[in-house]
Amino acid sequence: MLVSDKLKELRKQMKKFDLDMYLVTSTDEHNSEYPPRCWQRRAWVSNFSGSNGEALITRDIAYLWTDGRYFLQAEKELDTSHYKLMGKQGSLEISDWLVANAVRKTLGLDPRLVGVKRAKKLSDIMSSIGGKLIFIENNLVDSARIELGESLNLPVGEVFQLHETYSGLDVKEKLFLVQNGLKNSGIDYAVINMLDEIAWLFNIRGNDVEYNPLVISYAVVGKEKSYLFVDITKITNEVGLSLNNCGVELVDYAKFKTYLTNLEGVIGIDENTASFWIFSLLDQEKVKFWESPITLAKAAKNKTEIQGAIKAHVYDAISVVKFLSWLTDSWTSKIDEIIAADKLLEFRGIHSSFKGNSFATISGFAENGSVIHYRASRDTNKKIDDKSLYLIDSGGQYLEGTTDVTRTVHLGEPTVQQKEHYTLVLKGHLALGRAEFPHGTCGEHLDALARLPLWSHGLDYRHGTGHGVGSFLCVHEGPQRISPVISKVLLVPGMIVSNEPGFYLDGNYGIRIENLCLVVEASRKQDSSLYGKFYKFMTLTLVPYCRKLINLDLLSKEEKLQIAKYYDQIRELIRPHLSGGEQIWLDKELAIVETFGIN
Amino acid sequence: MLVSDKLKELRKQMKKFDLDMYLVTSTDEHNSEYPPRCWQRRAWVSNFSGSNGEALITRDIAYLWTDGRYFLQAEKELDTSHYKLMGKQGSLEISDWLVANAVRKTLGLDPRLVGVKRAKKLSDIMSSIGGKLIFIENNLVDSARIELGESLNLPVGEVFQLHETYSGLDVKEKLFLVQNGLKNSGIDYAVINMLDEIAWLFNIRGNDVEYNPLVISYAVVGKEKSYLFVDITKITNEVGLSLNNCGVELVDYAKFKTYLTNLEGVIGIDENTASFWIFSLLDQEKVKFWESPITLAKAAKNKTEIQGAIKAHVYDAISVVKFLSWLTDSWTSKIDEIIAADKLLEFRGIHSSFKGNSFATISGFAENGSVIHYRASRDTNKKIDDKSLYLIDSGGQYLEGTTDVTRTVHLGEPTVQQKEHYTLVLKGHLALGRAEFPHGTCGEHLDALARLPLWSHGLDYRHGTGHGVGSFLCVHEGPQRISPVISKVLLVPGMIVSNEPGFYLDGNYGIRIENLCLVVEASRKQDSSLYGKFYKFMTLTLVPYCRKLINLDLLSKEEKLQIAKYYDQIRELIRPHLSGGEQIWLDKELAIVETFGIN
Repeated sequence: MLVSDKLKELRKQMKKFDLDMYLVTSTDEHNSEYPPRCWQRRAWVSNFSGSNGEALITRDIAYLWTDGRYFLQAEKELDTSHYKLMGKQGSLEISDWLVANAVRKTLGLDPRLVGVKRAKKLSDIMSSIGGKLIFIENNLVDSARIELGESLNLPVGEVFQLHETYSGLDVKEKLFLVQNGLKNSGIDYAVINMLDEIAWLFNIRGNDVEYNPLVISYAVVGKEKSYLFVDITKITNEVGLSLNNCGVELVDYAKFKTYLTNLEGVIGIDENTASFWIFSLLDQEKVKFWESPITLAKAAKNKTEIQGAIKAHVYDAISVVKFLSWLTDSWTSKIDEIIAADKLLEFRGIHSSFKGNSFATISGFAENGSVIHYRASRDTNKKIDDKSLYLIDSGGQYLEGTTDVTRTVHLGEPTVQQKEHYTLVLKGHLALGRAEFPHGTCGEHLDALARLPLWSHGLDYRHGTGHGVGSFLCVHEGPQRISPVISKVLLVPGMIVSNEPGFYLDGNYGIRIENLCLVVEASRKQDSSLYGKFYKFMTLTLVPYCRKLINLDLLSKEEKLQIAKYYDQIRELIRPHLSGGEQIWLDKELAIVETFGIN
Repeated sequence: MLVSDKLKELRKQMKKFDLDMYLVTSTDEHNSEYPPRCWQRRAWVSNFSGSNGEALITRDIAYLWTDGRYFLQAEKELDTSHYKLMGKQGSLEISDWLVANAVRKTLGLDPRLVGVKRAKKLSDIMSSIGGKLIFIENNLVDSARIELGESLNLPVGEVFQLHETYSGLDVKEKLFLVQNGLKNSGIDYAVINMLDEIAWLFNIRGNDVEYNPLVISYAVVGKEKSYLFVDITKITNEVGLSLNNCGVELVDYAKFKTYLTNLEGVIGIDENTASFWIFSLLDQEKVKFWESPITLAKAAKNKTEIQGAIKAHVYDAISVVKFLSWLTDSWTSKIDEIIAADKLLEFRGIHSSFKGNSFATISGFAENGSVIHYRASRDTNKKIDDKSLYLIDSGGQYLEGTTDVTRTVHLGEPTVQQKEHYTLVLKGHLALGRAEFPHGTCGEHLDALARLPLWSHGLDYRHGTGHGVGSFLCVHEGPQRISPVISKVLLVPGMIVSNEPGFYLDGNYGIRIENLCLVVEASRKQDSSLYGKFYKFMTLTLVPYCRKLINLDLLSKEEKLQIAKYYDQIRELIRPHLSGGEQIWLDKELAIVETFGIN
C-alpha cells in the first residue's frame, strides 16, 4: 500500500476530531521497544522500520524524527514527497518544533502510547502556545488501517512456562520480592505494564512479539493476591493451575481497564514506563510513582540464569563459528546477505533449546554494513564477495538465555585503512572488556574506554557502546547501559551488557565487534576492601575476531595477551563441537596468537 | 581557646532562640569555597580546618560531616570528647540524620550560609518530622566569638585593577556579555554574589581572602547601569574612576540589603550559588533563577588569559624545578616540611609577577603525605629524609595566571611497592593527559581513564581527578571538573583543569601527580568533521616526574613516547632559566628517557 493512501486515510480520521496534527510514537501501550506487529503503527504510517522514530502527521506534510543510528536507513525507506526526515544535526526536537510550528493548533495523541511525564510536558507546551493536546483513546492509525481493510487482531500464540531449572526462582519467590517492595513503599497494588517484567515475574514466555518471547498482558500485584490480565484462551490448563497455586488470578486482558478503574488503595505505577492512559484511569490521589523492584531484580541475573547464559553462549558460539567457517568456504557460490542470515539461523536451529532469533539479523555487505540497524530486503540484498567487509550482527533466544554477537569479516585482502579502522574498534572493545572498576561505577563512566582509540584518530560511532540483555527475554533490557548518556545505574554483578563499539564509513563499509559480558566480582587481595568491591566483565561470547583485519602493529602487549587468553577459551570450549573442516578454519583464525611474539 | 569553651558560648546563643540544634556550614554569604578568615565559622567552632565540612551543634554533642579527602585530618583535628566525625561509610548524611534524630526539634541556620534549594529542602525535612527550621540573620557563631572577645572586622586590603594586558577583555566588554544574557532571559537586574565572578567582571583583584585575590563585594548588573557594593575605603580614586567610566556605580557594601529590598523589575539570581538570604529579601514573584553567564565565560579562558597561563606555568615550573633540585642537595641538613614549603615560596617569590601562593602548600613526608589535604603544623611537622616519599602540592598566583602542581619524590631508594604505586598513578595521569575527545564530552566521561590502572589492582583514590582553575583567581573554579560525579558540563577549549590522580596508603605514604591542562582543539583531517570538533589537553605544567619512582616495566611504548615528548618541552622551556647545578639535576631526571629503548 502506498504511503500516500495511508496518510490520506489517517487525515480523514484526524478530521473527525478536528486535529491539525497527530503524533504517532514508536512504542505500544506496554512501552515496548519492539511492539507486536499489530501495534507497529509508526512503521505502518511511515514505512520507516527502525526501532526508534516518531511520526508527526500534519494536514499537508508528515515528519519523521529518529536518531543517528537510523538516518541512512530512514533516508532510504521514507517517501520524501510525503515525509521530511528530522532529528539530524541542526533540526529541532519535536517539542521545540511544536513551540515554533504548532501555535494555536490541535495535536492528537493516543494516551496509551506516551508516558506520564511526557504527556504532561506535551500538554504544557501546547497550552503555552495557545494550542491544545487532545487525548483520543481510539488509535487513529488503527482506525485508518481498519478502514483500509487490514486486520488488527492480537496474536494468539500459546503461553508456556519457563521451568525453574531455567528461571532459578519460582513465581512465589518473585512475587514475594515485589510484595516486599509494596510494604516498604506503602503501596497496596502495583501495576506492571512492561511485558518483559510480567514474563519474568510469572515465569511465562510466549510468541506475541517477533524475536521477543513475550505475552501481551498486564499484571497487578497486591500484598496477598495478584492478577494477570491476558487472553485466557492462550493459557493452557497446566500454566493456569500453576499460577493459581501461587495466588495469581487470571483475568481477561480486555477487563484490565474496568478492573483498574475500580481498584481501591494506594496504587504504585512505574514512573519511567507507565502510560498516561493508566495514570488517567486512576484516582490521582491514590497514585504513587515508584520504580518497579522487578527492573533491578531482572537485570542482575541469578545463579541459574548465569549458568544458563554461559551455556547459551557456548551453543551460540558453536553456531556462529560454523557459520563463519561455512561462509569462508562458500562465498564464491553466490551467497547473498539474506542467504547468509538464513544459513546462520539454520546453524542456530540445530540446538534443541534454540527458540528463534533474538532480533532481526543485520547481515550487511560493503556499504550496507554502514547502515547501523540494517535489515536486508530484496531491494537492498547484496552478494557477499571478497572485495569489502561483511558485518553480521545476530542473536538467539535459547531457553537458557539470550545471545547477541557481531563479527565483521573480510573474505579477501582488506585495505590498510580497513585494517586500521577494524583494529581501532577492536582496541576499544578490548579496553572495555578488560576494565575492572569499583562498586559505584555506571556505564557512563566506562563508555569512553571503548571510544578512545577511535577518538584519538578523530573518529567515533553514533550509537551507545552497550545495552543490557535479558534471560530468554528481550535482547535490549534496561536499566543499565554503557553510553555517554547519564544513566546513574550502577553496574553490579549478574548484569549482562553488550560491548559493541563500531565504525561506519557511510556508503562504503561498516565495522562492529560485539560480545556480551557478565559483570562479576574481581577477586582481590584483602587490603583492597578499603575501596569497596571491585567488579570486572566476564566475556560470554566465544567467537574469534577477524584475523585478516587485525593490524598487529597497533596492538599493545597487554591487548595481545588479552586476545591470547580469550582464544584459549574458544579453543577449549568451542573447538570440540566442530567438524574437522570447521576446526581447520578455527585453528587458522586462532593461530594469529602465534604471530604475537608473546609467551 | 578550647573547643569546649567555644561550644559553651555558642550553646548560650542557641538558648536565646530556644534552638535544639544549630547548623554551621563551611561557606560564607558569597558561597565561597575558601571564606575570608573572619567568616571561617565552622573552622572556629570545630577546629577542623579542611575546606569542606559542616558542624551540627546540638545541646549536648556536636557532629562534624566531611568527605573522604578529610577523614584522616578530621580525626586528628577534632576533639572527640565533644565532636563525632560523620560522613564515613555507613554513617547518615545530614538530611537523613535529621530525619532520624531531629523529630520535633528546632534547627537554627544563618540564611546567608545556605543556598535556596537546600534551605527549602531542610525546611521541608524539619516540617515533615514535626520540627522547625528557624532562620536567624545574626550569625550565632559570630555572636559567640564577639562574646569571647574576638574581633570580626572585615579585611581592608586595597583593591587593584587587573590590566587588560592580563585580563584580555575590558569591563565594558564583560558587562556587555552579562547584559546580553539579561536581554535573552527577560531579566532586568542580575545579582552577582560569587566573589570570583565579581573580580572577573570588573577586572579587580584584592587581598580579602587568603590565597585568593578576591574583594568582598556584591554586584548588581542592569541593562544600562551596574552597581558594585564594596567597602569604598578600599577603592583608590583611579580604580573608582575607571569603573565609573564603564557605567559602574560604587555603593557601600553595607547598603546591599537595603538596595536589594528596593530593587524593581525582574531579578535574576544564580540558582546554583545565591544564598537563601538574597532570595528572601526579594519579592518572590520578581525572582528568576538563572545560570550566571559569567560562569562559563570565566571558565573558558580568552587568548590573553591562555597566553598568560602558559607564561605563568613557565615561571612556576622554573621555581618548582629549582626547589626539587635544592631539596635533593639539601635534605641531609635537617629540612622539614615547613622549611621546604617556605623554601618553595621563596623560589616562587623571585618572579616579579608572583602575588603569593594559590592555596596552603601541602608539604607532607611519609604518613603525612597520605593526608590528602594535609597542612604541616608545628605538631605534625616531619623532617624530610631518604626513607619514604615526600609529596608537595602547591601553586602560585601570578598576574598572568594561577598554577597548581603536585610532585611526589623519593630522595633515597624507593621500595618495589612504592614504585608500583607511583607508576600506576603515573599511568592514569598520562592516560588522561593524552586523551582526545569529541565536543559533548564531560569530565565524568573521562575520570575513569585516570583511575583504570589503579582499579586493575583493586586500588583507588578518594577524591576527584581534576578541578577547574581560574586566571589569577581561585585555584578551584567551576563549573567543569574531572570526577565520577555527574556535572553535565561540557569540556570546551580554553578551560583549564587539573589532572591529579593519587594513591594513599594510610599512615604510610601518599602519592599524587598533578599537572594543569588546557583544553584545546585537536587538529584533524577534514573527514573527521563528521563527528564534530575534537579536543585534547595541552599540558601547562612543566616539571619532570620522579625518575626513581618509575617502574619502566609497567610503562607501554605509548606512555614512554608521551613522557619523552613532555621532557623535550621541559628541556626547551625550563632548562635555560636554571643555574648550572640545577641543570645537572634536571638533566639527570630527564635522562630517564634514554633508558626507554625508543627512538
